[in-house]
Amino acid sequence: MREFPVSKVCRLIEPGPVLLVTTFHKGRANIMTIGFHMMVQHDPPFIGCIIGPWDYSYNALRATRECVLAVPGVDLAQKVVDIGNCSGDEVDKFEAFRLTQIPGKQVKAPLVKECLANIECRVKDVSLANKYSLFILEAVGASINPDRKEQRTFHHRGDGTFTVDGRTIDLKERMVRWKAFQD
Amino acid sequence: MREFPVSKVCRLIEPGPVLLVTTFHKGRANIMTIGFHMMVQHDPPFIGCIIGPWDYSYNALRATRECVLAVPGVDLAQKVVDIGNCSGDEVDKFEAFRLTQIPGKQVKAPLVKECLANIECRVKDVSLANKYSLFILEAVGASINPDRKEQRTFHHRGDGTFTVDGRTIDLKERMVRWKAFQD
Repeated sequence: MREFPVSKVCRLIEPGPVLLVTTFHKGRANIMTIGFHMMVQHDPPFIGCIIGPWDYSYNALRATRECVLAVPGVDLAQKVVDIGNCSGDEVDKFEAFRLTQIPGKQVKAPLVKECLANIECRVKDVSLANKYSLFILEAVGASINPDRKEQRTFHHRGDGTFTVDGRTIDLKERMVRWKAFQD
Repeated sequence: MREFPVSKVCRLIEPGPVLLVTTFHKGRANIMTIGFHMMVQHDPPFIGCIIGPWDYSYNALRATRECVLAVPGVDLAQKVVDIGNCSGDEVDKFEAFRLTQIPGKQVKAPLVKECLANIECRVKDVSLANKYSLFILEAVGASINPDRKEQRTFHHRGDGTFTVDGRTIDLKERMVRWKAFQD
């Protein structure tokens, strides 16, 4: 894992990949899958995400106010879907899905070694958590795994099908108003 | 444009495509580009998005509490980036970019004929608008353009480069906990 500037985590989140979320609570790590998330602000980097009382991770997130957002590559697609279709209430998911925990530097929730990127987050704002299950997180650390062969992420289409990243187009020269994004 | 069930707009938003946002205020339509948005809730469909005071559309959105989220295909990529790099303060963007307005059924903001999908929205909650420029919208109507040849969307990578949709993988049969998504 190579350190990655938190001021640039938009590059990991904004394209809308399916994410894993890890928490650590009462001596136990858990992991879940989400697709409802967005960047809220570039720097300091705030990220919005929906995690509800129907998710086993909800209580851990509210109690510890920490989590890690991990970006899986498409090689993990089946695992990621299966992780989203069982509950930490019944399964030790790290063990069941043979995922490797790496200790975080900023938070107690673990990084996921098999993922392309890991973003360590602290809960910044819960004012819409009761009403919409909406948490505002602040990214406080990030690392990437550039040596992983499969770098393509995947995106939930809301129906159990997923779009895999295709080609990249470069329109940096047209970003005349947002030059800071070109660094 | 063919009508599309609002209860399924997650299928348009969740994959994280770059979006256009139209507003109509003081007799004039405007259009902008966003990449900071997410689904908040499936049904009734709530969508979160970041539109700030630095955006010309911000005042229109606050005053009229209505907008349309339009999903452009990758054939519009250059236009969409250019729309995001000028201001409605200075340019009549619909005219400058030769985009065609279609009247909405639920809101006064126009649909964009050249887009793959249009979601008519009303502002549901502005409680985090001052602090984070975060608006919660409710989708009140949706339509799609299935006859458009180019159906691939594109995703901002946060640096002026964009990922185009690649292949689709079908993992519906693994969605054992979320059977409703399979309809």
